[in-house]
Amino acid sequence: MRKIDINLDAGESFGAYQLGSDEVMKYPTSVNLACGFHAGDPVVMAHTVKLAKECNVAVGAHPGLPDLRGFGRREIKMTPEELKADLIYQIGALDAFLRVNGLQMQHVKPHGILYRMVSINEEYAEALVEAISDYNPGLYILTEKKEGNLVWEKGKGAGLRMVAEVLVDLNYDAQGNWVIEREKKLWDPQRVADRAIAVVKEGKIDTVEGKLISIEADTICCHGDAPNAIDVLKKIREEFDKQGITVAKLGDFLV
Amino acid sequence: MRKIDINLDAGESFGAYQLGSDEVMKYPTSVNLACGFHAGDPVVMAHTVKLAKECNVAVGAHPGLPDLRGFGRREIKMTPEELKADLIYQIGALDAFLRVNGLQMQHVKPHGILYRMVSINEEYAEALVEAISDYNPGLYILTEKKEGNLVWEKGKGAGLRMVAEVLVDLNYDAQGNWVIEREKKLWDPQRVADRAIAVVKEGKIDTVEGKLISIEADTICCHGDAPNAIDVLKKIREEFDKQGITVAKLGDFLV
Amino acid sequence: MRKIDINLDAGESFGAYQLGSDEVMKYPTSVNLACGFHAGDPVVMAHTVKLAKECNVAVGAHPGLPDLRGFGRREIKMTPEELKADLIYQIGALDAFLRVNGLQMQHVKPHGILYRMVSINEEYAEALVEAISDYNPGLYILTEKKEGNLVWEKGKGAGLRMVAEVLVDLNYDAQGNWVIEREKKLWDPQRVADRAIAVVKEGKIDTVEGKLISIEADTICCHGDAPNAIDVLKKIREEFDKQGITVAKLGDFLV
Amino acid sequence: MRKIDINLDAGESFGAYQLGSDEVMKYPTSVNLACGFHAGDPVVMAHTVKLAKECNVAVGAHPGLPDLRGFGRREIKMTPEELKADLIYQIGALDAFLRVNGLQMQHVKPHGILYRMVSINEEYAEALVEAISDYNPGLYILTEKKEGNLVWEKGKGAGLRMVAEVLVDLNYDAQGNWVIEREKKLWDPQRVADRAIAVVKEGKIDTVEGKLISIEADTICCHGDAPNAIDVLKKIREEFDKQGITVAKLGDFLV
Repeated sequence: MRKIDINLDAGESFGAYQLGSDEVMKYPTSVNLACGFHAGDPVVMAHTVKLAKECNVAVGAHPGLPDLRGFGRREIKMTPEELKADLIYQIGALDAFLRVNGLQMQHVKPHGILYRMVSINEEYAEALVEAISDYNPGLYILTEKKEGNLVWEKGKGAGLRMVAEVLVDLNYDAQGNWVIEREKKLWDPQRVADRAIAVVKEGKIDTVEGKLISIEADTICCHGDAPNAIDVLKKIREEFDKQGITVAKLGDFLV
Repeated sequence: MRKIDINLDAGESFGAYQLGSDEVMKYPTSVNLACGFHAGDPVVMAHTVKLAKECNVAVGAHPGLPDLRGFGRREIKMTPEELKADLIYQIGALDAFLRVNGLQMQHVKPHGILYRMVSINEEYAEALVEAISDYNPGLYILTEKKEGNLVWEKGKGAGLRMVAEVLVDLNYDAQGNWVIEREKKLWDPQRVADRAIAVVKEGKIDTVEGKLISIEADTICCHGDAPNAIDVLKKIREEFDKQGITVAKLGDFLV
Repeated sequence: MRKIDINLDAGESFGAYQLGSDEVMKYPTSVNLACGFHAGDPVVMAHTVKLAKECNVAVGAHPGLPDLRGFGRREIKMTPEELKADLIYQIGALDAFLRVNGLQMQHVKPHGILYRMVSINEEYAEALVEAISDYNPGLYILTEKKEGNLVWEKGKGAGLRMVAEVLVDLNYDAQGNWVIEREKKLWDPQRVADRAIAVVKEGKIDTVEGKLISIEADTICCHGDAPNAIDVLKKIREEFDKQGITVAKLGDFLV
Repeated sequence: MRKIDINLDAGESFGAYQLGSDEVMKYPTSVNLACGFHAGDPVVMAHTVKLAKECNVAVGAHPGLPDLRGFGRREIKMTPEELKADLIYQIGALDAFLRVNGLQMQHVKPHGILYRMVSINEEYAEALVEAISDYNPGLYILTEKKEGNLVWEKGKGAGLRMVAEVLVDLNYDAQGNWVIEREKKLWDPQRVADRAIAVVKEGKIDTVEGKLISIEADTICCHGDAPNAIDVLKKIREEFDKQGITVAKLGDFLV
């Protein structure tokens, strides 16, 4: 059976504002670190990169829109030129902390609304693909492997290393779209682990309509800032162990 | 006779706000580019790095305090840890634009009040030295070569490439300190050129008291945002030509 | 014949970044002052309010989106609740400078893309109307008097003082929409003055198709940051004098 | 016996970042609300002012330095003109939310390092006094009543309503200065309540040297963001009840 990566968002604190805990760093194989635009600051980045190194977790950039107050979740109609420059800036800033720690950046995952913007808007998809191609075409790019996902298509077209991601603690509908709830509810750890196993072993995920749809994953993600994040992550690792599913960094099993 | 570098601040525009002109890029051998904290933004940085490449001008980082409104001129009592992280962040962000253009960063010059903070405060001096040592010890660091300049001393102690800078359109007093005027006055291009020649050929600069003091320069700087900046720069280049003084990037004549 | 107000954007500098000049303050009867979100800062606001007082120009708020880098010209998909709070915050901040100068705020004009957002989006139109109704229903609101302009309709419905604005140095199409050029071109002062007179005396403006359409104005606006702004404004005032058109603050001739 | 006010910092969340809880609003008689520079944002301010109204708690402004990342705790060497403008801006912005709720602002308390800056620097003390005198001389100003506190002296000199504050969950030394610990420790609720009673009934507070010094309080403050804040506040209110100490808003017992 194939290996799977577990990725987690981290480094989202800002100044005196704490978000998430260092504790969660023990459970993923990869982390996506905020780069100071929607969250994170240089001190947080310095700290979190060091922590990831100590935990032997691969580091990726989690660039977002320049909107700290909106946490990168509010669409901003920027030009593709602005987006490309903002991506290069953020990735470079994070890469500097990897460099001082003797690490190599593994991947890039667009944050928040940007994840969606590059999926559905051709110019934004191209901006991301160009930014990575120009900066470092060896970087993996995390997104959904889904019909009509423009950044997947354009990234593949440009020869980039596209990585299929599934969010195992998010609802999907029959079309494979996310169903975002207004009120965040707590997911039962066992249920998340069961879904993760179904994704990895059968390539299936359940939907809000009660069906199973096909889905493909090189990496699974769950919310590191959920109140029960550690319980969820522990359960996933535990159940993966039982099922003989091996977790690994992307570079360990992908080309 | 030794060669000399001419450095200039550039890339200080922000969004719709223009500061300085692209035109000045024709005259220096090195430029110090703002990194988005006190001035500059990713689009400005992308543009200015490209322009520097076209003009065959060496690029350095001009990191500043995180204070756009104060243009990095207001002292902020940050911790050395914060300063170090802010430096690595900014240098890395700019370096990304160099990388996508196939360029190597040449130097770092602290901007505004930070230039002074690292000269007189031991912890800040160490923060800068550590940031460069950790990130890329091959970078030149521009500062004044002056008795008691802590960043010069600590940088030398750490084996870094310290570069002596003289500001030829700024007043000095007999102790070699800058005399900052409240009201910016326009410097006569010929007078600036004459001072530049005296610095390079005789190692001397005149002071407000009417004396000449000894001063050492690997690079000279003048204000790229002065209304007559281009006239001043043209005159310096013209007079250097007449005097047989060769201008060159730092890497062309320094170790 | 009815009187007309001339309004101008001002107070758009930020820190070391200058935009526009104090000189233009001599020509309008009303100014729209940036409130620190898309442009302006507290020192700029303090200065510009004082200047408006000295020039006997009525002051209005020019609130914008929280995006200094984009100068409030990039749409941000915020919630109506966020917009309402951002409006109250900005209007209150400016009002404080009026209060310390013994002045009363005259009007509010949404800046940049927000001008358009409140015209075409029902929830944003309501957010603006609620903000003004709650804060001070005596404030005039500047917008276009045009079929389908939602903020005009909702403001009228709430009993607010809606003021019809025409931009005399902007192209209109036959439907009365603005035609924004990519490259800003300089408008001939005489042509702008002629248009202004046609708007005031005949209620007509020419379009890019070469037609005349009906248009209504309580106030006309031209760009205070155009390189020839002063020439344009002088010409308008001069031609208005010749034609016997009296300029006045909104409060002098509107209910 | 005289009455006493209990004030608390509140409204310090920012966007997705939560700080403190709404629950604490039940216990003070006055709250100091962040104004968006060091903490808080317009949505947070709108919410917190409404909450204070519901809880019948008097509202004051808690203006800070323009440094969200440093939470207003890092000194910035701004000009007095900048400080005055920043104060007027912030106080006006908060006042707008009071106005839409039909409330009157009660007081101003400088936040973080600004509290200290106006105490020891003559120009900053004057900037604050001028800002309040110009904006609304009816506002109470919270600070320490202590020999050499410049803002107390200058405020009194200008006829402003200076209010003596004591922080009952902070260590004092024999000179009446605060002793800030690097590591925040949790204060025992009973100990804080006992200190509060000693302050109110005897005008005394204990010091790190083990002495008692004289201290005067019109209002006492404790940290609303401490993990046990609610226990501390409940205990203070409970013990005050037992001792017959009446808590009241400043306006209820001060001129």
